[in-house]
This record gives sequence, structure tokens and C-alpha cells, in this order.
Amino acid sequence: MSSDPARPLTPASVKAAHELIQPYIHKTPVLTCSTLNTIASTPQDPSALAGTPFEGQEPARPRIRFFFKCENYQRIGAFKARGAFHAVLRLRDELGEEELKRRGVVTHSSGNHAQALALAASTLNVPAHIVMPSISTPSKIAGTQSLGARVIFSGSTAPEREAVVATVQKETGAILVPPYDFRDIIIGQGTVGIELEAQYAELVKANPKLSAHEAGAHLDAVFTPIGGGGLNAGVATWFSDKPTTRVFGAEPSFEGADDCCRGLAAGKRVEAVSTLTIADGLRTPVGVINWEVISDKNKVAGVYAVTEDQIKAAMRLVLERMKVVVEPSAVVGLAVCLFNEEFRRLVEKEAGEEGWDVGIVFSGGNTTVEAIGKLFASAK
Amino acid sequence: MSSDPARPLTPASVKAAHELIQPYIHKTPVLTCSTLNTIASTPQDPSALAGTPFEGQEPARPRIRFFFKCENYQRIGAFKARGAFHAVLRLRDELGEEELKRRGVVTHSSGNHAQALALAASTLNVPAHIVMPSISTPSKIAGTQSLGARVIFSGSTAPEREAVVATVQKETGAILVPPYDFRDIIIGQGTVGIELEAQYAELVKANPKLSAHEAGAHLDAVFTPIGGGGLNAGVATWFSDKPTTRVFGAEPSFEGADDCCRGLAAGKRVEAVSTLTIADGLRTPVGVINWEVISDKNKVAGVYAVTEDQIKAAMRLVLERMKVVVEPSAVVGLAVCLFNEEFRRLVEKEAGEEGWDVGIVFSGGNTTVEAIGKLFASAK
Repeated sequence: MSSDPARPLTPASVKAAHELIQPYIHKTPVLTCSTLNTIASTPQDPSALAGTPFEGQEPARPRIRFFFKCENYQRIGAFKARGAFHAVLRLRDELGEEELKRRGVVTHSSGNHAQALALAASTLNVPAHIVMPSISTPSKIAGTQSLGARVIFSGSTAPEREAVVATVQKETGAILVPPYDFRDIIIGQGTVGIELEAQYAELVKANPKLSAHEAGAHLDAVFTPIGGGGLNAGVATWFSDKPTTRVFGAEPSFEGADDCCRGLAAGKRVEAVSTLTIADGLRTPVGVINWEVISDKNKVAGVYAVTEDQIKAAMRLVLERMKVVVEPSAVVGLAVCLFNEEFRRLVEKEAGEEGWDVGIVFSGGNTTVEAIGKLFASAK
Repeated sequence: MSSDPARPLTPASVKAAHELIQPYIHKTPVLTCSTLNTIASTPQDPSALAGTPFEGQEPARPRIRFFFKCENYQRIGAFKARGAFHAVLRLRDELGEEELKRRGVVTHSSGNHAQALALAASTLNVPAHIVMPSISTPSKIAGTQSLGARVIFSGSTAPEREAVVATVQKETGAILVPPYDFRDIIIGQGTVGIELEAQYAELVKANPKLSAHEAGAHLDAVFTPIGGGGLNAGVATWFSDKPTTRVFGAEPSFEGADDCCRGLAAGKRVEAVSTLTIADGLRTPVGVINWEVISDKNKVAGVYAVTEDQIKAAMRLVLERMKVVVEPSAVVGLAVCLFNEEFRRLVEKEAGEEGWDVGIVFSGGNTTVEAIGKLFASAK
């Protein structure tokens, strides 16, 4: 059984989640970078617009100031720790400590959610059963095991995984904590928004030059990546009663990974995706509950897609200029601001000379030096 | 002409330098990382001692807690901005603004000092002439030019460079600001020590768990890399009246890059080095003035060397676990603490269960994704 709670997707739920998980998570830093502000506030070279609907037009002149929320410095190296701690803490409240410890939790994931759930469960002395494809890389299997979880192998397809999860549940009574399509996960990820909003205000108060706005400034926009949509739906939930801050999503476009963009255009959620985009955290379609939030124009103002080359260019800038290690999935929002002419025109049109203060959530930093080498081996 | 000032190498000089340069430099953060503390505080595998004087002995059990001073986040991406601003500001005081602007400054460097001097000079509206080997990479030439400096090409040998510098001086009256063998440069780099000491105290006060020491804790040791020795001599000068904090140096051992270790063993400075160590900021021999400080046992407690593989292993940990981009030269001190058994035995012997709080200066972060890829292409 899964156990999706009836908890409403509201700012109050996100606030309550933040109070609950605070002792267990890092308050990650918010960084600024004047070099990236300058690059974003410089028109693209006209050649960059070749082959786009904007070919031959004058490149936009937006003014953008970034505030990077560094969830790559979160525990287990990604924002996923937030949702996992929130979901397990809520289960403990609802089932009681004894029953939860007897039954444990289960999920299927080969990525950051597996490690996040393993960490949350072991911290709270709850057994965790993680179903991973048997073809997962040994380092990911070892990493999950070293966090105290029991790893059970399955085939790689969704039905194969689900069959193994069902067996685990039957044997142990473990409660399923899905990676994104789950209210308590969405609400937990939304706590990124609370911190970003407060840290932005502190930074601008301490150094008013960081913003072109007058006193009482607010973030004009916040970008998160969209894979399953947990982070974006959570952050959009937090800002849903703050209409001056618009939440946007970003996706890779490679091999149809832009399922959310396509779904919004068609007015219907895309249910399956098959892509090998380098942004490997974003290969999943948007979840059902997540879609309800993201397709609500009052909550998410727009979703934009970027190419593999644009993701790599953004990642290079973050590593070489900011000296911060991020995974490809983390920089899709930055890539939109730097390279997506449709978005850049929007900023110029809406904000003119004053420009926008834009929060960018760096969602994670779990990569390796070999993976970085491979990504850029043929680039130049 | 060069113009080495008579300024004494004392803590008071470093303090005065800090007051002078503060408006122009970043106060870079000091970071901690519990994963790296755990790794450093775990005995090495006995196989790691094969082929060393410690082969067959039980690996040391030191307890080490790191405090990383992140000069990779300094302006131009390295600590060199400190010395350059200090030297140019002192020249302005001594010659007067008008004369300095008429004459300008000159140096020969293809590395971080070139960009640092270019930045300091352009900030203070002083002409900068940078002599670079004509075989320098185009990105370094462009980077120095984009900071407003005039780049003049020379051959790659020391006499060829010096001849070009002499010509520039004759033509312009420019004042030579050498990269490390120069008192005002050494004093400027020493300001790293002031900040590290104060930031360590703040961190431990806010979170006493970061140290095993009682209230009023102090850093037990500080490591900096040694190339020409400007950073190490400067930091050692700052701590020279604080005997509870011992300053150490670290070098690569590849192809004789450990000139400082060898010089200390022989009781005589090694005057020339020819090495292609991956720690490319550390390919130079220690300077004359620098040697006076570093060979003084009351100022520098010891210098240790590490292999190329040890540098790479330390760099991997910093990138993958801390998610911080550093250049190979920046991690030699960390590599000593993790892998140099002689140093690890010293810590165990001196500090026992309580262990040491160790400051590590990450000297710079100027690398590229291609360079990272190349470094780790054949590693595993």
C-alpha cells in the first residue's frame, strides 16, 4: 500500500513541514555571482538565434540578477532529503513510532530519492527497503547500502519494479514512499522556497546593491528543474499566495524530455517519456498530483526547455566561474535564463531597465570527475 | 627596477595590509565537511603504506577536523589578488598617485599573478604591462587582456622573460611587481591567515561541536601549498607570534617539485626546478625572501610532499564530496593530511584522542571542465 495523506497543498502545509524537518536538514546557502549576472544581462549573439523562431530578430536585452539556492550542498547532495524526511516524520506521527519501525518504508529509485529515503529512515531508526534495477552502478548500490538501507534488485521496467515493491510490501508491511507523486514529498520539497525567500531578503538587506529594486524587494521569479515535478510543485505551492514572485519550471528538450512543456501545450499530461538526456534526474514524466499544481497558471507561470548543449554551457559556467559542482539536472533553470530567447524577451518586456531578481534552485550536485570528463570530452 | 620595500615581515605589517586591501578583496568563506573529517580520522589501509618507510607498521590513527579557507572564491579565483592589491596600493602611497599612473607596473607571469596584478592595476587606474610566454594558452592571454592589461610576449626561459621586462621598464619606467619573492606580496598573502583565524573562532563559537577543544579553542595547524612560497611565508608571518598554531607547507613530489623539502633537508635553498606536476601553480622554486621565513623553524613547523595520485585523490574528494571546484595546487595540504603517514603519525603522537583542528588554505580554483576530464580520464 501507498499512503498518500490528505494534507492540503498549501503554504501553511509547507511551513509546518519546514518546522518539522529543520533539525534534520541543512539550511543550504544562497550564492550570487556578478559574472553570471553580467552574462545573463548581455544580449545573445545573433548567431545563437539561428534556427529558432527568433532568427534574424534583434536579441533580447533582459537584466537579470541571480540568487542561487544551493541544494547541491544539501544532505545526500540533493533537495530530495527534504521530502524524504518530511514523509517519514509524518508517517511516524500518523502510525506511531512502534508500528512504523515494525513495518518500515519502501521505494523504487536508482537516484537521489533512494539515498534520501535511506538517510531519513536510518536517522529515525526505521527499516528502509530500496528496490533498484540490478543494472544500477555499483557505487549507487553501495552508497544506498552504506546509509543503512536494504537494497533489493529488480528488472528495469516499471512493471518489474512495481512487482518487487509489492512483494516487499506483502512480506514486511512496508509503506511505499514514492519519489515525487506524493503530497508529503511535494510539501517537503517546497521548504526550499521558504528558505530561498528569507535568505534573499537577508542578502538584499545586507547589500542593497544586489537588487535594483527599492526597499522591501522580492524575488520576481524562481526557477526549478522539472522531472517528476516534486520540487517545482512544492516551491510553487509555497509561493502560491505571493503573486509578485512567479514560479517557473525548466526541462531538457532532448528526446522528448520536455514532457511538461508538451503537456501544457496540449492541455493534457504526458504519461510516458523515454529519453537519455544528460540531465539524468529529469528523465521521468511529471506525476499526477504534480501536474495538478504545475498546470495551474496561478501557481506556475511557465515552463521552458533547453538543449543538451545549453545545459552543458550552463554547467561549464557554474563549475568554472562560480567554482561550484552541480549535476546537469541542476542547471536547466540557469540555462533557460541565459539561452532561451522566449524567456529573455519576457524579462525585457516585463521588467525593462530595472530587470528581475531571479532565484535559481541548484537541485543537486551528485556527479563524478569521470562523468564531468565524459560530458566535456568532445566539447570545445 | 624592482622596488622591494623595507617593510618588516611581522604580524603588524600583515594587519596593516589587511586594513588596506579589505575594500578590494572578498572575505572568502571557511567551510567544514564532516565526510572529509571522517576520512582523515580513519587509519589508511595498510596497503597504502607499501613502498614507504612505514610499510608493515600499523597505520596512524590521527583525529583531524578541517577548516577550509576557500581562496578559490577570491577575486580572479585565487589568493594572488591579495598580494597584488597590497603591492600596488603601497606603491601608490610611496610614489604618489600621479607618478604611479605615469609609470605603471610590470610583471612576468602566465598564471594567477598576471591576472591579479592586471585586476589590481585596472581597479586603481594604473597601467599594467604583463610579460607572458608567447606559447601561453589563448584563454589566459585573453583573460589578462580583458582585465585591462597590456600583454607583451616573450620566450619561455627566465633570461628571455627578464630581457623583455627590462625593455618594458626602460621604455615606460614601470615598476616590477614580482609574483612571490617580494615583501609586499608576501605580506599581502598573509592576510589569508588573519581571516582564517577569526573565521575559525566564529565558527567554533557558533557550533562548539566543530572542535574537540574547550572554549577559547585555536587552530592547531594551518597548511598552505608552497610554490614560490609567498602564501606560506605570509601566513607563517601572521602566526609567528601565536605559537599554539603551527604553520605547515605542502608540495608535490613529482619530478623534484619538492624543492622546499629537499632544501630544508640539505639546509640550503634549491634554486631551480624543472617539473610538470599537475599542481601547475607549484612548479617554481621557493624565492629568496620566502626561504628566509620558511626555513625558520619558529615560523614554519614542517613541509611535506605528496604524489600526483594523492593530489588527484584529494581533488576528487573535494569536487565530489564537498562539491567545490579547486585546482590541483589547492589540495596539496589536504592530501598531506589524508595520505602522508609521517604527518598523520605526528598528529596522533601530539594530539591523541583530542586531535587537531587544521586550517587548509584552498589557494585557487582556476581550472576548466576539460582539464578536470583530462586529469581523471585514465583514473578509476
